[in-house]
Amino acid sequence: MNSYEPAPADHFSFGIWTVGWQGVDVFGTAVRPPMPAERAVRKLAEIGAYGVNFHDNDVFGFDDTSLEREERIAAFRKALDETGLVVTTATTNLFGHPIFKEGGFTANDRDVRRFALAKVMRNLDLAAELGAKVYVCWGGRDGAESGASKDVRAALDRLKESFNILCAYVLDQGYRIRFAIEPKPNEPRGDILLPTAGHALAFINELEHPELVGINPEVGHEEMSGLNYAHAITQALWHGKLFHIDLNGQHGPRYDQDLRFGAGNARGAFWVVDALEAGGYDGPVHFDFKPPRTEDDEGVWVSAAACMRNYLILREKVRAFRSDPEVTEALRAARVPDLSLPTLAEGETWRDIRGFTPDIPALADRGMAFERLDQLALEYLYGVR
Amino acid sequence: MNSYEPAPADHFSFGIWTVGWQGVDVFGTAVRPPMPAERAVRKLAEIGAYGVNFHDNDVFGFDDTSLEREERIAAFRKALDETGLVVTTATTNLFGHPIFKEGGFTANDRDVRRFALAKVMRNLDLAAELGAKVYVCWGGRDGAESGASKDVRAALDRLKESFNILCAYVLDQGYRIRFAIEPKPNEPRGDILLPTAGHALAFINELEHPELVGINPEVGHEEMSGLNYAHAITQALWHGKLFHIDLNGQHGPRYDQDLRFGAGNARGAFWVVDALEAGGYDGPVHFDFKPPRTEDDEGVWVSAAACMRNYLILREKVRAFRSDPEVTEALRAARVPDLSLPTLAEGETWRDIRGFTPDIPALADRGMAFERLDQLALEYLYGVR
Amino acid sequence: MNSYEPAPADHFSFGIWTVGWQGVDVFGTAVRPPMPAERAVRKLAEIGAYGVNFHDNDVFGFDDTSLEREERIAAFRKALDETGLVVTTATTNLFGHPIFKEGGFTANDRDVRRFALAKVMRNLDLAAELGAKVYVCWGGRDGAESGASKDVRAALDRLKESFNILCAYVLDQGYRIRFAIEPKPNEPRGDILLPTAGHALAFINELEHPELVGINPEVGHEEMSGLNYAHAITQALWHGKLFHIDLNGQHGPRYDQDLRFGAGNARGAFWVVDALEAGGYDGPVHFDFKPPRTEDDEGVWVSAAACMRNYLILREKVRAFRSDPEVTEALRAARVPDLSLPTLAEGETWRDIRGFTPDIPALADRGMAFERLDQLALEYLYGVR
Amino acid sequence: MNSYEPAPADHFSFGIWTVGWQGVDVFGTAVRPPMPAERAVRKLAEIGAYGVNFHDNDVFGFDDTSLEREERIAAFRKALDETGLVVTTATTNLFGHPIFKEGGFTANDRDVRRFALAKVMRNLDLAAELGAKVYVCWGGRDGAESGASKDVRAALDRLKESFNILCAYVLDQGYRIRFAIEPKPNEPRGDILLPTAGHALAFINELEHPELVGINPEVGHEEMSGLNYAHAITQALWHGKLFHIDLNGQHGPRYDQDLRFGAGNARGAFWVVDALEAGGYDGPVHFDFKPPRTEDDEGVWVSAAACMRNYLILREKVRAFRSDPEVTEALRAARVPDLSLPTLAEGETWRDIRGFTPDIPALADRGMAFERLDQLALEYLYGVR
Repeated sequence: MNSYEPAPADHFSFGIWTVGWQGVDVFGTAVRPPMPAERAVRKLAEIGAYGVNFHDNDVFGFDDTSLEREERIAAFRKALDETGLVVTTATTNLFGHPIFKEGGFTANDRDVRRFALAKVMRNLDLAAELGAKVYVCWGGRDGAESGASKDVRAALDRLKESFNILCAYVLDQGYRIRFAIEPKPNEPRGDILLPTAGHALAFINELEHPELVGINPEVGHEEMSGLNYAHAITQALWHGKLFHIDLNGQHGPRYDQDLRFGAGNARGAFWVVDALEAGGYDGPVHFDFKPPRTEDDEGVWVSAAACMRNYLILREKVRAFRSDPEVTEALRAARVPDLSLPTLAEGETWRDIRGFTPDIPALADRGMAFERLDQLALEYLYGVR
Repeated sequence: MNSYEPAPADHFSFGIWTVGWQGVDVFGTAVRPPMPAERAVRKLAEIGAYGVNFHDNDVFGFDDTSLEREERIAAFRKALDETGLVVTTATTNLFGHPIFKEGGFTANDRDVRRFALAKVMRNLDLAAELGAKVYVCWGGRDGAESGASKDVRAALDRLKESFNILCAYVLDQGYRIRFAIEPKPNEPRGDILLPTAGHALAFINELEHPELVGINPEVGHEEMSGLNYAHAITQALWHGKLFHIDLNGQHGPRYDQDLRFGAGNARGAFWVVDALEAGGYDGPVHFDFKPPRTEDDEGVWVSAAACMRNYLILREKVRAFRSDPEVTEALRAARVPDLSLPTLAEGETWRDIRGFTPDIPALADRGMAFERLDQLALEYLYGVR
Repeated sequence: MNSYEPAPADHFSFGIWTVGWQGVDVFGTAVRPPMPAERAVRKLAEIGAYGVNFHDNDVFGFDDTSLEREERIAAFRKALDETGLVVTTATTNLFGHPIFKEGGFTANDRDVRRFALAKVMRNLDLAAELGAKVYVCWGGRDGAESGASKDVRAALDRLKESFNILCAYVLDQGYRIRFAIEPKPNEPRGDILLPTAGHALAFINELEHPELVGINPEVGHEEMSGLNYAHAITQALWHGKLFHIDLNGQHGPRYDQDLRFGAGNARGAFWVVDALEAGGYDGPVHFDFKPPRTEDDEGVWVSAAACMRNYLILREKVRAFRSDPEVTEALRAARVPDLSLPTLAEGETWRDIRGFTPDIPALADRGMAFERLDQLALEYLYGVR
Repeated sequence: MNSYEPAPADHFSFGIWTVGWQGVDVFGTAVRPPMPAERAVRKLAEIGAYGVNFHDNDVFGFDDTSLEREERIAAFRKALDETGLVVTTATTNLFGHPIFKEGGFTANDRDVRRFALAKVMRNLDLAAELGAKVYVCWGGRDGAESGASKDVRAALDRLKESFNILCAYVLDQGYRIRFAIEPKPNEPRGDILLPTAGHALAFINELEHPELVGINPEVGHEEMSGLNYAHAITQALWHGKLFHIDLNGQHGPRYDQDLRFGAGNARGAFWVVDALEAGGYDGPVHFDFKPPRTEDDEGVWVSAAACMRNYLILREKVRAFRSDPEVTEALRAARVPDLSLPTLAEGETWRDIRGFTPDIPALADRGMAFERLDQLALEYLYGVR
C-alpha cells in the first residue's frame, strides 16, 4: 500500500507566488490576505515540499527600501534555514509593475530594457546566494496585441542580446546558474514571443552560450495552444534542454487556468509523468499552479498537497504500466520497440534502400494494435489493473 | 489604379493537389472529377501563376506501372514546357496510401520507413530533373493518437536519421535542392511530431547538414494552434530558415480549413504580407488551399485566382501603410524604432547597467500609443485611407 | 470484483457506421474493407452490445436498386433477429453524396431540400418497421464557409419547416418516433447551423410539435467548442430534452476525433457518467466513435468493446463516489446541497429580500472547500480510494 | 466622401467600465488612475457617443455609505444631464467583490444569492430612474472549475427562480425594463453556466415571463468558443430575443481579449454589421471592450472612438455590398434567394414530396458559386471595389 507521502528525494517544489496568490483577476479583487514568503516556506515544508522557486517581488516589494528588502530576505532565509527547504530556482517579476506593461527585455523603451536586465542581475545575486541552480525567465509581457507595435525581428535581436548579457553576467560572477526560458503563447499579451517550447528551443541556438540556456515548459502554456505537453518535454529532453518544468492543469485553449496538477487533462498528466520518468529528468518537480479563488487558506494547502499526491499516484501507475508483461507484449504487438532500430542497418547508406520495395499490401493491411495498448494504459490510469 | 494582375515577378505558385482536390473528406465522397496534372498546369498558367509544386502522386498513381508513370510525367512536363511554368518545389505523398497509415519516416514498421525514404529519393530525382529548388517534407501521419504507441524520443532519432540520409542523397547526387519541413499540430493524427514552426526550427539544429534544411510554415497550420503566423515566419526569417511558405486561410483552432488566402483571418493576412515584405523573403509565394467542396470547376479557378489577387491587394496596402508619413510618425510615437537600438550602447557591458534605475514613474505612466498605430493599419486594410 | 461485462440492461448501442468506418479522411484512402451492416450487427452482439443505430446508407447504397435495397435490408434484419439486437435509433445520411454538398434541409437548392425530406421519410418508414424510438438528425452540411452564401434567417425558417413536416409525417403515420437534433459547431462546414446543444434546444421551442423533438449531443462536438459536455447534457435533461447521447472522446478544439469513450478527456468522462446517472437518463448509452485508422478489424472490436468497458468502469467509480460518506461530508462543507434550497423561502416574495444585507465580511472570507471535494473525485477516477 | 462621424441616430453606447478599466489583470496592477463615471460620460459625449451602460459599482463603491452613494450618483446624473447622453442600459457587479467569488444567483451560499438579488433590485431602481430600457445580467462567476462543486440542475433552478423574481419585481414596480442575459463560456470560472447565446435562448423559455428576457451576446464571448457571432445574433433575432449587443474584438479560443471593435476578427466584423442591418436590430450599438493596458488616457479615447469609426466604415461597406448589382447577380448564381422559398409549395404537405426524386446527377454536379460571391464581399472589406 502506497501512502503517497512526498519525500525529499521526490524533489517537489513550488513557487512562492503559487500558494501566495491572493486571487486578483481581471474581474475581481483579492480574496485572500498577502502571504509573506516565510509563511509560504514554512507551510510548504509542513506539507512535504523539498524546495521553492521565487520571484524577487515574492519576497520583497517593488518599492521597498534597501532596509525593508534586507529584512524581508532575512525572514525568508530564516524560514529556509529552519525548514531545510532548498531554493531550487529563482526568477524575476518583469510583468507586474506598470513599467513593464509593454515588456521587459523587448520593451520598445530602451530604459525599460536596461532596467529589466538590472533587475534580473540583482536577483541573480540573491539567487546565487540562496543556492538556486536554475533561473527562470518568463517574458510574459514581451509580445503584442497589434501587428505594427512590435518589430518582431528587432525584438528577437533584443532577446538574444539580453540572454547574452545575462550569460556573461553569471559567467563573470562565477555563478553556477543556468537559465530556463518559459514559453507561453498569449495572456497577458495578445501574442507573446517564443510562444511554445519549440520556438524557445530554436531561439537558444542563436545565443553565445547556448549551453547555459534551456527551457521551462509549463503544462498549461503548451495546452493553451492545443499542443501535447508530454511530446514537448520529450523533444526538450532530446535536445538536452529540459532544465525545469512547471506542472499544473488546464482545459485546452482558453485562459490560463493554473489548476493543480492532475486536475485538467488527467490522461495527459499520466503521459507527462511517463515522459519525465522515461527521459531521465532529474530536476525539481515543480508546481506552478493557482489555488482557485474559491478557496480560503486551508483550501490553498489542500490544493498544494494534492499536486504532490497526484504526481506520486501517477508515478506509481506509470511504473506499474511500464513493468507489466502484458504491456511489454502489447508494445511489441504495436511494434513500438522497432522504432528504436535505425532505419539503415549498420553500414548501410542511401544506396542500400534507394530501390527498396517492401510487401506493400501486407504492410498496408497490418493493424497497429494501438487501441489495445492504449486501453491498457487507460486502465492503469483508472486503477482497475 | 491597380489591376491586381499577377506577373511572373510575383512568383505565385500552387500545389497541383490544391486545384486538383476532388473534395473527399471524412463525411463525403468526391464532388469533382480527377484533374490530370497537365490540366492543372495549363489552367494555372492561364490565370497567371508562375510556378507549381507537386507530390509524386499528383502526377502519377501510387500503383502505376513504370510506363504509366513515364507517360504521366511526360504529359506534365509537356504542359510545363508549353506554358513556361516553373517547378519551384516538389514533395512526396507519404500519407495517402494505407501503408503510411502510421507514418512515414517515423512509422514503427522499419520497412515502411525504408520505403518512405526510397519514395522520397525517387521523387527527388524527378524534382531535380524538373528544376525544383525546394523539397517540402510534411510528415502528416508521423504522430499518435495515444501515449504509448509512439516512442517520441526514438521518433525524433528516426526523423533526424531520415533527414541526414536525404541530405546525403542530394549532396551525393549533386542536386541543388534544399529541404523545407512543414509543421502541423494535428489532423490527420491526434498529435503530429514537430507541431509548430518553432519545433521544426529547433529540430533542424540537430542535423548533420542544418544548412540544407529549413521550414515551410503554413498559415492554417500555425493558426490551428492559435499562434500568430506573421510572428512565426519572422522568427523563421530571423533564423535564416524560411525556405518556403504555404499561404491559405483558417478560422482558429478547428479542422484544417485550407481556405483561399485572404479568406479566414483577414487582419492576420495583412501582417503576413507585411512580414514577408519586411523580411526580404524571396522564395515562391505559394498557395496551399482547397477550393471548397461547394465549388465546381469554374469555382476552383475563381478561388485560385483570388488567392493571387488578394495577395496583390494586401501587398499594395502594406506598402502604402509603410510609406505613409503619418504611420512613420505613429511608429515613432510608439517607440517602435527604438527597439532596433541595442540595449547596451557600443562598448557597454553588464557592468554599465548593473545598477541602472530609470525614472520609473515616468516610464510607468507613459502610454505606448499602440491603438492609434493599429487603427492606421486597420484603415489601410479597410481601404479607407 | 467487477468484471465490467456489458449486459442488456446497460443499453449500450453503436452506430453501424462507427465500427464500419473504412478510414477515409481528407488525406488518405480506405484502410479497411467495407463492412456489411449485418456483420456489424453480429460482431456487436458478440461483444455485448444491446442495440444499434443506422443511417439508411449504412445498410444499402445510395444508388442501390429497389431489389438491392431490399436484399440489404433483409440481411440486416436477419442479423438483428438472430442476435436479438435492438434498433434503438435511426438516422439519414444527408452529407455523403455530392448532392448534399451544400446541405440537406437548408440547401439553397429547393429540390435538394425536397429530396432530403423524402429521403428522411423513406428511412423513417424503415426505422419504424425496425422499432426505432428515436430518429437522429445531424445536419452536418447545413452551414457555410462564407458570410453571404447562407441566409441564416431563411435557413432557420427552412429547418423549422423541415421539422414541422417530419413531425406531421410521424404523427400522420402513427409512428412512435421522436426526433433528436445533433448539434455540431463545424467540420465538414466552416460554421454549421445549431452549433451547440444550447442552440438546438432554443430552436426546438419554435416548432409546432416541440414535444416530439429533443437533442442528441455528442461529447466531441461540444468539446470542439471548448464546452463542458456534462453541463450540456444536464441542461438538456433540465429542459426534458435529452432524447439520445453520442459518447466518444476528443481533445478540445481541433478536428473531430471520435476517439473511443474514455480516451480523450478522461476527467470529463467521469462527470458525463455522473450527469447521466444523476439526471436519470434512461435512453440508449450510445457510442459514436471511429476506430482509429491505424487499426485492423481486430482493433476495431477492441476499440468498440473498450467503449462499453470504460463506461462500466466509470459508472462504478461514480456510484462509489456518490455513496462515500466522506464525499457527502465534503459536499456539505462545500455547501453544494444548499443550492437546492430555493433562494426565497416558502411564501416569500422579492419584498422579503429587497433590503437584505448579510454578514458580508464573513461570507467573503469563507472558503468553499472545492479543492478537497474535487480531489476526492479525482482519486475515485484514479482508483486509489 | 464619408467622414465616419458618429451621430446620435447611430445609437453608439459604451460601458462606463470599458473606458474606465484601470488595467488590473492576473499578472499586473493598475496602469491608469480610477476614472469617475462622470468623467467617462463627459469624454464619451465629446467623442460622439449616444449612450452609456453602467454597473452599480462603476458609479459608486461597494462599500460606500448612503451619502457617498448619493453624491456619486448625483455627479453621474449631472454629467448625463449636461451632455445629453442616454442611459440605455444598466447592470450589476456580481463578480468583483470576494462575496461573489463563487457566483451570484447560483452561489452555493443562500445568503449570497439573496444579497445578489437585493443588489440587482437596488440598481434596477436606479436604472429605472435613469431611463434604462435594458438590464444586462452577466453571471460571470456562476460556474465551476470542478465537477462536484456545482449542482448544475439546482443551479439552473436557482437561475430560473432569480429571473422569475426579478421579472416580478420590474412588473410590480411598473418599470419598463427588459432583461438581457449575457452568455460567456469561461473566464473567470472554468465553465460558466449558459455558456453561449444558444444556451441562454433555451433557458429563457422556461421562465414565467419569457417576454421580458432576451440576450446580450458579446462578440468575444462567442468567438472564445470558436462560434460564429453573426450566426448567433441572427438566431437571436430569429427568436425575437436580441435585446442588446456587446461589440468588441477577439482572436479565437483564448483569454477574453476585449479588443476594440474591428480589431480581432475583421472579416467576422463585416458580417456582424451585415447581420445587424439585415435583421433590423434597433437597440443600442454597444461597445464592451478594454483599452489595452499599454495605453494611457489619450489612448483610451483613441481606442473608444475607433470602435464607432470602425462600425461606420463597416456599415458603409455592408450597405454598398448589398446594393451592388453584381452582388445581387452573384447571390442569384449561388441560389441564396431560393432558400427563402418554402420547401413545400403553398398547399403542399409531406405527401407531395414523399416520393420526390430530382435530377440527382445534375444537382450533384452543379457548383454553388460561393467563392465568387465571397470574394466580392472580401473586396468590399478591403475597399477595392
